[in-house]
Amino acid sequence: MKVVTFGELMLRLAPNGYYRFFQDDQLQATFGGGEANVAVSLANYGMDASFVTKLPTHAIGQAAVNSLRKYGVDTSKIVRGGDRVGIYFLEKGASQRGSVCIYDRAHSAIQEAAPSDFDWDAIFEGVDWFHFTGITPALGENLVEICREACKAAKAHGVKISCDLNYRGKLWTRDQARAAMTDLCQYVDVCISNEEDAKDVFGIEAENTDIYGGKLNKEGYKSVAKQLADKFGFEKVAITLRTSISASDNDWAAMLYDGENYCFSKEYHLHIVDRVGGGDSFGGGLIYALLSGKNTQDAVEFAVAASALKHSIEGDYNLVTVSEVEKLAGGDGSGRVQR
Amino acid sequence: MKVVTFGELMLRLAPNGYYRFFQDDQLQATFGGGEANVAVSLANYGMDASFVTKLPTHAIGQAAVNSLRKYGVDTSKIVRGGDRVGIYFLEKGASQRGSVCIYDRAHSAIQEAAPSDFDWDAIFEGVDWFHFTGITPALGENLVEICREACKAAKAHGVKISCDLNYRGKLWTRDQARAAMTDLCQYVDVCISNEEDAKDVFGIEAENTDIYGGKLNKEGYKSVAKQLADKFGFEKVAITLRTSISASDNDWAAMLYDGENYCFSKEYHLHIVDRVGGGDSFGGGLIYALLSGKNTQDAVEFAVAASALKHSIEGDYNLVTVSEVEKLAGGDGSGRVQR
Amino acid sequence: MKVVTFGELMLRLAPNGYYRFFQDDQLQATFGGGEANVAVSLANYGMDASFVTKLPTHAIGQAAVNSLRKYGVDTSKIVRGGDRVGIYFLEKGASQRGSVCIYDRAHSAIQEAAPSDFDWDAIFEGVDWFHFTGITPALGENLVEICREACKAAKAHGVKISCDLNYRGKLWTRDQARAAMTDLCQYVDVCISNEEDAKDVFGIEAENTDIYGGKLNKEGYKSVAKQLADKFGFEKVAITLRTSISASDNDWAAMLYDGENYCFSKEYHLHIVDRVGGGDSFGGGLIYALLSGKNTQDAVEFAVAASALKHSIEGDYNLVTVSEVEKLAGGDGSGRVQR
Amino acid sequence: MKVVTFGELMLRLAPNGYYRFFQDDQLQATFGGGEANVAVSLANYGMDASFVTKLPTHAIGQAAVNSLRKYGVDTSKIVRGGDRVGIYFLEKGASQRGSVCIYDRAHSAIQEAAPSDFDWDAIFEGVDWFHFTGITPALGENLVEICREACKAAKAHGVKISCDLNYRGKLWTRDQARAAMTDLCQYVDVCISNEEDAKDVFGIEAENTDIYGGKLNKEGYKSVAKQLADKFGFEKVAITLRTSISASDNDWAAMLYDGENYCFSKEYHLHIVDRVGGGDSFGGGLIYALLSGKNTQDAVEFAVAASALKHSIEGDYNLVTVSEVEKLAGGDGSGRVQR
Amino acid sequence: MKVVTFGELMLRLAPNGYYRFFQDDQLQATFGGGEANVAVSLANYGMDASFVTKLPTHAIGQAAVNSLRKYGVDTSKIVRGGDRVGIYFLEKGASQRGSVCIYDRAHSAIQEAAPSDFDWDAIFEGVDWFHFTGITPALGENLVEICREACKAAKAHGVKISCDLNYRGKLWTRDQARAAMTDLCQYVDVCISNEEDAKDVFGIEAENTDIYGGKLNKEGYKSVAKQLADKFGFEKVAITLRTSISASDNDWAAMLYDGENYCFSKEYHLHIVDRVGGGDSFGGGLIYALLSGKNTQDAVEFAVAASALKHSIEGDYNLVTVSEVEKLAGGDGSGRVQR
Amino acid sequence: MKVVTFGELMLRLAPNGYYRFFQDDQLQATFGGGEANVAVSLANYGMDASFVTKLPTHAIGQAAVNSLRKYGVDTSKIVRGGDRVGIYFLEKGASQRGSVCIYDRAHSAIQEAAPSDFDWDAIFEGVDWFHFTGITPALGENLVEICREACKAAKAHGVKISCDLNYRGKLWTRDQARAAMTDLCQYVDVCISNEEDAKDVFGIEAENTDIYGGKLNKEGYKSVAKQLADKFGFEKVAITLRTSISASDNDWAAMLYDGENYCFSKEYHLHIVDRVGGGDSFGGGLIYALLSGKNTQDAVEFAVAASALKHSIEGDYNLVTVSEVEKLAGGDGSGRVQR
Repeated sequence: MKVVTFGELMLRLAPNGYYRFFQDDQLQATFGGGEANVAVSLANYGMDASFVTKLPTHAIGQAAVNSLRKYGVDTSKIVRGGDRVGIYFLEKGASQRGSVCIYDRAHSAIQEAAPSDFDWDAIFEGVDWFHFTGITPALGENLVEICREACKAAKAHGVKISCDLNYRGKLWTRDQARAAMTDLCQYVDVCISNEEDAKDVFGIEAENTDIYGGKLNKEGYKSVAKQLADKFGFEKVAITLRTSISASDNDWAAMLYDGENYCFSKEYHLHIVDRVGGGDSFGGGLIYALLSGKNTQDAVEFAVAASALKHSIEGDYNLVTVSEVEKLAGGDGSGRVQR
Repeated sequence: MKVVTFGELMLRLAPNGYYRFFQDDQLQATFGGGEANVAVSLANYGMDASFVTKLPTHAIGQAAVNSLRKYGVDTSKIVRGGDRVGIYFLEKGASQRGSVCIYDRAHSAIQEAAPSDFDWDAIFEGVDWFHFTGITPALGENLVEICREACKAAKAHGVKISCDLNYRGKLWTRDQARAAMTDLCQYVDVCISNEEDAKDVFGIEAENTDIYGGKLNKEGYKSVAKQLADKFGFEKVAITLRTSISASDNDWAAMLYDGENYCFSKEYHLHIVDRVGGGDSFGGGLIYALLSGKNTQDAVEFAVAASALKHSIEGDYNLVTVSEVEKLAGGDGSGRVQR
Repeated sequence: MKVVTFGELMLRLAPNGYYRFFQDDQLQATFGGGEANVAVSLANYGMDASFVTKLPTHAIGQAAVNSLRKYGVDTSKIVRGGDRVGIYFLEKGASQRGSVCIYDRAHSAIQEAAPSDFDWDAIFEGVDWFHFTGITPALGENLVEICREACKAAKAHGVKISCDLNYRGKLWTRDQARAAMTDLCQYVDVCISNEEDAKDVFGIEAENTDIYGGKLNKEGYKSVAKQLADKFGFEKVAITLRTSISASDNDWAAMLYDGENYCFSKEYHLHIVDRVGGGDSFGGGLIYALLSGKNTQDAVEFAVAASALKHSIEGDYNLVTVSEVEKLAGGDGSGRVQR
Repeated sequence: MKVVTFGELMLRLAPNGYYRFFQDDQLQATFGGGEANVAVSLANYGMDASFVTKLPTHAIGQAAVNSLRKYGVDTSKIVRGGDRVGIYFLEKGASQRGSVCIYDRAHSAIQEAAPSDFDWDAIFEGVDWFHFTGITPALGENLVEICREACKAAKAHGVKISCDLNYRGKLWTRDQARAAMTDLCQYVDVCISNEEDAKDVFGIEAENTDIYGGKLNKEGYKSVAKQLADKFGFEKVAITLRTSISASDNDWAAMLYDGENYCFSKEYHLHIVDRVGGGDSFGGGLIYALLSGKNTQDAVEFAVAASALKHSIEGDYNLVTVSEVEKLAGGDGSGRVQR
Repeated sequence: MKVVTFGELMLRLAPNGYYRFFQDDQLQATFGGGEANVAVSLANYGMDASFVTKLPTHAIGQAAVNSLRKYGVDTSKIVRGGDRVGIYFLEKGASQRGSVCIYDRAHSAIQEAAPSDFDWDAIFEGVDWFHFTGITPALGENLVEICREACKAAKAHGVKISCDLNYRGKLWTRDQARAAMTDLCQYVDVCISNEEDAKDVFGIEAENTDIYGGKLNKEGYKSVAKQLADKFGFEKVAITLRTSISASDNDWAAMLYDGENYCFSKEYHLHIVDRVGGGDSFGGGLIYALLSGKNTQDAVEFAVAASALKHSIEGDYNLVTVSEVEKLAGGDGSGRVQR
Repeated sequence: MKVVTFGELMLRLAPNGYYRFFQDDQLQATFGGGEANVAVSLANYGMDASFVTKLPTHAIGQAAVNSLRKYGVDTSKIVRGGDRVGIYFLEKGASQRGSVCIYDRAHSAIQEAAPSDFDWDAIFEGVDWFHFTGITPALGENLVEICREACKAAKAHGVKISCDLNYRGKLWTRDQARAAMTDLCQYVDVCISNEEDAKDVFGIEAENTDIYGGKLNKEGYKSVAKQLADKFGFEKVAITLRTSISASDNDWAAMLYDGENYCFSKEYHLHIVDRVGGGDSFGGGLIYALLSGKNTQDAVEFAVAASALKHSIEGDYNLVTVSEVEKLAGGDGSGRVQR
């Protein structure tokens, strides 16, 4: 199965361990970005995943490409050019201290890309699935246009489209988001969201839910999913359910609505190693599960188990195999050693 | 607002991560000490903080000075001379294994300082607040004398004085502590203590409390605070309330008594990154809060939130801003990422 | 008191922190192995511990020897020769992600050792206790034979013998294990097992127990211990009781049966730093406790406290002193700092 | 003596040791920039050094400020605002492999600064010396204007001005450089250059010199210095003389012309630890030497010795004291240990 | 241009910096092997390089594959199976202390491979060049047979064959080497050797040369090359010329004989960062140069410049681009920074 | 052969690589000291080496003991007690920047030891050789007395005594040194010195030698050795000859005078990794060589080769085997890899 994802791949600079920024003079330097993370997940599951973006030709751009090649992602469709690789500085939180994310991504190669940089007809030749997130159109009007062209071409080639709403308040306003995403969502088949994104982007709200804590409000989630599906004609809507107890402990679950059934996954209590990319790993798991023909309940269990594992892994990329995910989805989360 | 703190600044040598001493051949080498930690807190909150001590002129002494300058602490009043920088070796505990602290601080420059080394009248020119802890007079009879001179000069300049009792059984006996602190406390306006210190230093006890665990005994804490205030005429008494579940998990709260009201803070469940300096960060937060004119309840909430954050930060120094503390004191301890 | 342990000492290669294999280009390289771990425990408790194995003469073999000498283990009885030091790759788990152990130990010097390599009569001269585990005979038919010779010689010298069943499914089948261990256990005085090992090796089962979670089934453990003691005439049977909540959290306790009393230890809730060697540290603690003349209840408390501490220590070796174990066994697991 | 320097302070990201970019996942993260490096040199020599620039208010900007405060540089005149801290990626060369420098400094706070951001009259109050380099005006037309205003204000306050030509071909063309520097150099009293810069910026050439190797061409250097002095009326011209044998070995010397004498320093054979900042450390040494009243020969010896030492120090900043420089300038380069 | 190389890819475990084995508890863990190193060189030069071997399916085997994918080497022809990845322990020398190499490669997947594992006809479809070294047949009789089948298939598909003699005395005897290589060399078009290998493998000697030092003996090298070419009908013979002054300093050059001309390269004085893979980087450079149509002199200059750069790079793989090699081959080895 | 050495074992704290003190927050923490270094050398050569000192019972003292046990040094004669382990801070130099050594060793356990702490009669039972250096009596009058008692007891037991003069100007004056060493040297059989020590301690000078550089003055060295031997009746006098070109490059040789012959060793050009312990490694090599019955020329060659290798090894201890030293002494210093 061939999947294409499209977005920005950034250099991620993070202090080691629980240091605050520049407490010592080392930064962990890896690469990541919502859609690239999904591509790595899929490649690790054995799928034929290709990532599309624009990256400079210099050594930093090449290192970004290499970070994907290492896991078997096809990078042959990446356009090379532009001046800089976008950067985000990440400081990992602990206990009551939240993680800090400082963007230094303006003027990156992909942000300054033109629609003519991408030949979507060629890109979608023989492809089964296309994935992007709300972060990509948030990068600028040119990116909204490029996403629209990508979606149109995908539709023309019969490619399924999934989109994770992923609202980023540091990149655009709610109004900008609503305008762009309302347009783009008409092409989308599978929508991934959480309660906050649905509200921030489309003003769709679940009643009676406190997003900063507390117990799951199942009826509220169903209502959000149904409203989204009804508004855009999504085939499927996935809602991820995160309860942030502290920067060190989260509860994590999801619901998948297929137009008929609302399937809730098991809930996991997570000791967090690295929560960035948690949502992306859900997306990667979901796409794999749906392309593999799993039913709605099994698909959401696979996707949630995949992302539960991601929270135990350093970096943006989810470095797990199908069998590791299946083992956890199958009920063994005891963390025992096999010897 | 200008604050002066006085005490010893030590080289802190700690194995990385959870290694025991010398499991590998690297030590994390930073600097810290009760009163210096308070000065760094205050400088990070934007206050004009000055630290007074004595340090050698060699590269190790200079590095100690630099560690304070980095965060904007005024070091111009540090006396330079003497032979060594005091050292403490710290091994971080985890789970049931407690942290280990080995002092190698005898014969440090400050321990061998003479009263004539410090010109307190010049030091307190234009200063609003003076802070020291019970560790400083514990370093020797000469330090008791220096503290007394400092307190007298502070009073003469109309400077408020705060003192954290901080009993250190490895440095002096309870009898020595009681004699010295009874004398010094007559100058103190704001006293910071915990249940154990009040008992070790002054024999003041709360009834019905088990310091190694269990639930808060509110009446007991009130009684300790009232006894302290009555005995020394303190304007305010702060009692920190730590419940050590394990080396990895503590509960943390405090109470502030202003002669009238007993204000208890929220209680935080802490996943500990580094608990050394936890009490000092409370002191730093409290001084900031009081100098900023916060009321008793808000002051104790600020101070406890500041020290809750400290437990998530490596090293002695509390590297947080006012807005980070306010955010937590205001109720957001979910550790969510802002993107 | 002189103790000899016999087995394989391996090079342990583990990614740092919570990295998956080869996420970066560093491996933590230490040494460990069930019986060597016991020897280090005993040397750290001040006992005269000697470890017997076969190791190559090259620098890797010498480093393995040095890792034991550092803690005072007598290595003069180690036979030098053969080609390689066995290796195991260990990836530490976290939260729902379990630890991964990949063996690369085939063809090691000890696995290719011959019975004639060891002069057991000389080795057991003046020795009080001999310890081995089920891992050693699992290495090959030659090792079953060498273990048998060792046991016979030990018996001839009046040396007490302890054995930890330690079933390793990656090394032999249940049938192979049962045949070999049934033979060897006739020489054993003190047997250490957990529920799974008793079942895997001898088919002895406790009723009504779910090994993947849930509450302790005290009657079941008693039944397992009694069956083992009855079948082989063991003087004492220790059963360790691990509840794996996740890779980060375990509950840990044990029971010791002395033919008369079934003594259950306190249960500890562990935040895990490194769980490999946890069982071995129990064995080391138990042998120390029994050789020191502790009664059954005190012995199991000492052994469980020792191994609780081990879970907070990096590497296979348990680096704790008798006084640290006694402090925890005596009830202080609060992890407070002594200053 | 008070010195002000003005320019850009960048985040410097470098692989550790001799790794190529992204061979592992760590980057050494420090700060540096031509004029900031000079300020740190001067502060380390005990001078009152102040650095002027514009830096964002976020944690990365604050860390840049802290890196200067650590060494006692006055940062109170730094304007806070803008979006990003400029970055340069540095890969250290070795043997035949040259160092690689990739700029990611466009759109930094200082590059987008406006003339109105700086109140030069206030900045130069009580100041003795002003230093900038050709890198600053190369950042954009606005910076040329800001430099011009700074120079005019300096002159108005009777402040000496030094400038290191420092041509950066990645930032502007030779024509742009010539236009801007011809204007700015009319205010300059002390000019620092090397042969290449004199040629690149002003087309001034020494005859018969091969800049890629070979022996010193003393007459050529004299001719360059004289031409520069004659053209702009410089009081003093310093020419640094680097012979690049390989990335690991350089020869290093300088000449200082005071309008009368051409004083050549000793030549040092350098084993290079880090050559970035080598020229800046010469500038820092020269300013110190001239402000201290050294004669021409002593001044160039001090400046060259200071920069010889810099090549043995990691990072942009030259971390040496006056006595260390004097010791080397005085002839002891044997690297012996004092014990 | 498509190139296939065939051999063993090993895990390389090396202490960091200049530590001896196990001085600390970290090992740098990378991958390398003669023929894989050549494939990485070629991929970095933009060629279509494919590496053939056999590697286990477990995480260590997968990491070996990933190390090649990162640099764009095609790994789709690697057979997956077997138990272990061969290991070599490498301790980097310095000054008079030589590097130490300890092999732990017996029983690796490729060493236990069968001829039937490889479908050479499929592998050589559309391929231009095949490269192997004398290390591969040294792994066992089965590998001699597999190499023979590979050579025959290559010839049948009109693929050019190059072979680096690379005698490894720890793997086979001179007699075994001579027998196998005499057979295999009949298929080879381009032979790479040094003086020692020619003597060890074929008994071919240059007169009047001291391999442990001294000046180049040009006539001797010509004689060796001619003898090799005459004996096996090689189209081209390359002789690498290393003068080991110490573990830190080598001189490095080469000669290429094309049946007509003996072209000697420039000689480089190397400050060594890592000399392992130095010969392989020569092979990679030579294949690239010949496939690119360079003439004999230019080809040997390119290959020697490529390998000179390799000596400045950590790890087995030569991480340089064509333009970096051309720059050095073109005469700029001054190691200057471009800014 | 049994050798006893006596002196101080210190904690050595050094920045990693070429960092200056506290450039980052890590220190390399190892142990070393003149006489302990000799003991480790001898243990590594297979001799029965025992080190005598006094060390605290706490974890830092124990780690010092463990550092010796790791290499097989007998530590059973170390007296345990006192408060602190002496410390020295070491900053490694490079190029023109010399290494910096800051002592923090006052008040260490051994410095405060009493003569009654050591039972020299028991210690020298069955011992062949006793070694100490001029550093030990420099620690205080009590240590002069302890050394005297040790020497007397050694003589009484027929133990050979060697002494390295090792003058440390930071510990005592030349006059103090002369008085003490004149007394102690009457017991010494083998004296190790360099030109400076002979002059500093005894005022014995070689004519026409410039200790900061230049060529060897053979006649001068002979004269120094003869004067020393004549004055104290030494059986043998070894003079080490260091030419410090820079902190990175030294030339190194030695001469051994046996009362008859003056044997000069080969001279080595050293690229220095770590020069601390260089002299001690010469002493260790010399004692081994003499105890092994080598003749004067072979003995000095072995000792110099051993110490040449030490300069390539991190830390105080010389981690080499007899065969490695013999290989270099035999002429192979090319640093080639054996594969």
